[in-house]
Amino acid sequence: MPFETIRYEIADRILTITLDRPEQLNAFTVTMAEELIAAFEQASEDDAVDAIVVTGAGKAFCAGMDLSSPGNVFGLNEALKPDLEDMRSRLSDPEIEAGVRDTGGQLTLAIFECKKPVIAAVNGAAVGIGATMLCSMDIRLVADTARVGFVFNKIGITPEACSSWFLPRIVNMGTALEWIYSGDLISAEELTRKGFANQQVDGTSLLDKAYEIAARISSHSQVAVALTRQMMYRNAALPHPIGAHEVDSLAIFYASQTSGKEGVNAFLEKRKANFDDRASTDMPPFYPWW
Amino acid sequence: MPFETIRYEIADRILTITLDRPEQLNAFTVTMAEELIAAFEQASEDDAVDAIVVTGAGKAFCAGMDLSSPGNVFGLNEALKPDLEDMRSRLSDPEIEAGVRDTGGQLTLAIFECKKPVIAAVNGAAVGIGATMLCSMDIRLVADTARVGFVFNKIGITPEACSSWFLPRIVNMGTALEWIYSGDLISAEELTRKGFANQQVDGTSLLDKAYEIAARISSHSQVAVALTRQMMYRNAALPHPIGAHEVDSLAIFYASQTSGKEGVNAFLEKRKANFDDRASTDMPPFYPWW
Amino acid sequence: MPFETIRYEIADRILTITLDRPEQLNAFTVTMAEELIAAFEQASEDDAVDAIVVTGAGKAFCAGMDLSSPGNVFGLNEALKPDLEDMRSRLSDPEIEAGVRDTGGQLTLAIFECKKPVIAAVNGAAVGIGATMLCSMDIRLVADTARVGFVFNKIGITPEACSSWFLPRIVNMGTALEWIYSGDLISAEELTRKGFANQQVDGTSLLDKAYEIAARISSHSQVAVALTRQMMYRNAALPHPIGAHEVDSLAIFYASQTSGKEGVNAFLEKRKANFDDRASTDMPPFYPWW
Repeated sequence: MPFETIRYEIADRILTITLDRPEQLNAFTVTMAEELIAAFEQASEDDAVDAIVVTGAGKAFCAGMDLSSPGNVFGLNEALKPDLEDMRSRLSDPEIEAGVRDTGGQLTLAIFECKKPVIAAVNGAAVGIGATMLCSMDIRLVADTARVGFVFNKIGITPEACSSWFLPRIVNMGTALEWIYSGDLISAEELTRKGFANQQVDGTSLLDKAYEIAARISSHSQVAVALTRQMMYRNAALPHPIGAHEVDSLAIFYASQTSGKEGVNAFLEKRKANFDDRASTDMPPFYPWW
Repeated sequence: MPFETIRYEIADRILTITLDRPEQLNAFTVTMAEELIAAFEQASEDDAVDAIVVTGAGKAFCAGMDLSSPGNVFGLNEALKPDLEDMRSRLSDPEIEAGVRDTGGQLTLAIFECKKPVIAAVNGAAVGIGATMLCSMDIRLVADTARVGFVFNKIGITPEACSSWFLPRIVNMGTALEWIYSGDLISAEELTRKGFANQQVDGTSLLDKAYEIAARISSHSQVAVALTRQMMYRNAALPHPIGAHEVDSLAIFYASQTSGKEGVNAFLEKRKANFDDRASTDMPPFYPWW
Repeated sequence: MPFETIRYEIADRILTITLDRPEQLNAFTVTMAEELIAAFEQASEDDAVDAIVVTGAGKAFCAGMDLSSPGNVFGLNEALKPDLEDMRSRLSDPEIEAGVRDTGGQLTLAIFECKKPVIAAVNGAAVGIGATMLCSMDIRLVADTARVGFVFNKIGITPEACSSWFLPRIVNMGTALEWIYSGDLISAEELTRKGFANQQVDGTSLLDKAYEIAARISSHSQVAVALTRQMMYRNAALPHPIGAHEVDSLAIFYASQTSGKEGVNAFLEKRKANFDDRASTDMPPFYPWW
């Protein structure tokens, strides 16, 4: 699938997704949303991809939704009167999907489902959906010049893209509310100090650092990493640790007979492990468990 | 409604609630609880209030429950033998409400339901219910002289006011347990370093800083802010981001046709937005969604 | 019960559990798992124990699972084909318990159920199950020489011991994923900066500091502390603060008539409280509430 608004490039088993509308500061459009969703779905099942790095072309990461569209600027069908029951019972009804569902949320849910770890290399401003899509990624590196702004309240709307679920898992509730109520652009220094960014990096080293982390992941078992990713987000949200134990047990049970055998042998033989399992075909029988 | 133990003062669309028993270090009484609950309920529906600042008169924020009452010091009906089923099935039964329900929790639940953001300006010691009520507020600013103490275990009781729900959303579980097991008074420096306080402020600037944040909120849409507040706490506690997506989508859907139109137009026209929607009457049809 | 792989020593009402296979860097075995589970279960009901300190003999805390066992290195029964339904419906079936259930999770669930606070004094390397068992303890102190490594992905398996539930309650999701994807050994400095450790301590002061915290806990009501411990983990994971309020109210209701009376009287009389309630026999009638 050729993409218009993003680049999808694999090297050394690492996929780089580049938001690629630099003249528009990589502003988000419906086409970009569709392409990003397709890219994450493709990467999830592409055995040539062990990890994903997401960055922006040019000086911005993503300037947010392109607000110059005619009609409903978010592309929503104003003739409808949806309620929560509609969302729960017919979310994939074409009328709801095209006319009501938040586009950003469709993207972050695709990222959530992805089997491959996602590292954000935030090269510049990330605003609106540019900010909230970052919340669904696993590791965030910010260049010195990065700025992140949850600007929704400033333009009369609310945060979206499931950011009310993701952001409080990254920074504490007080910080999340302060950033969202203010709509301010947050500096790289504050992003790092408050825990949103794993690390602040000199801009010229940003991608190198992201690839260094991705390469480490790439040396591990694709199946074990895919299980780990889903376990962390899903188990942490359960009401009791027993729910994690049920899944943990199965994960170790099956991994110990496959990738774990190679891993333990390599450890005992003091050599590098050579994992050849694949997330497309070798997930254990209990997966998906939800 | 005239208040005896608190002051309720609106200026520049910002409500200041002042705990006002300075001679008793603003110690908490049943009357103060009732007045605070009434104040938050009133402010929630008062369109003249865009944001709320809470502070204490004199040198303390709140010295905790007044422990000098005769009989059951917490005002509880010792003739009852309540169990969890009573709490679940007849919480608003007058017998349970007056004789069993934790007063602090009734207050923090009223704060939780409030449509308006709540900024705590912690001017001095906040102890017991003085500490736990802070956990249900959105943003915490602490003066250099502030001290916060979760002193419950020291006097043979447990934390209350839903603080076991709120506090671990603000600081991590290890910090929360350390503070609660010890019962120590925590310094402004540690409160800030561990994330409980958004910011430590020189005491003379404390209210100015709180009003600066409140004024920023006041420039936004009252409806969008009210939705945001409820989305952040409620969606973050769901087991899966899809639950946030269902609500996000509806919030954006309706806001994009009301306050969002003004917000986007103002943005495109490079002017200040002029939001006139009101939280008392203009909440979207899916609200409340719970 | 005599222990082979751990020491169980009570002094000044504080239990010290020492992982005691120093020649093997306290590597974890099935025997050690069984002994640790027995130790936490015993301490939970032993009125002579007010708080628990866990540390390692020699230079390591725990080097992880002993990977030199013959056959399935984790002791699992490879003839089985368990699924999630097995885990949910027959977790204590001997076949599942011995052949499928993660041993580390059985330990951390025993720690989770324990009525007594648990303080980890991490004296050196804590790797694999050595790292994940720490996540289920309440307060973590790390010596300057401590290193913690979630090394699972490096050996082709996934994190276990309910760490996908516990770890994101201690550090944010981005940090948790970075540590787990990398499998790196994390330094004491980073552990403290990111919030995993409550405090970094000079190695020679490590146990002294742990005992200082434990002694403070020991001066409180055993029942109030036991309730507090369960309330913090369980209530925080509920979808709404009302669930915490139901439990808070009962906890205060009963404590106010027992340990709370002594606590308040001591406070009013400006003397040290003298609590004599016991977690084995004096838990309030609503306990356990789950």
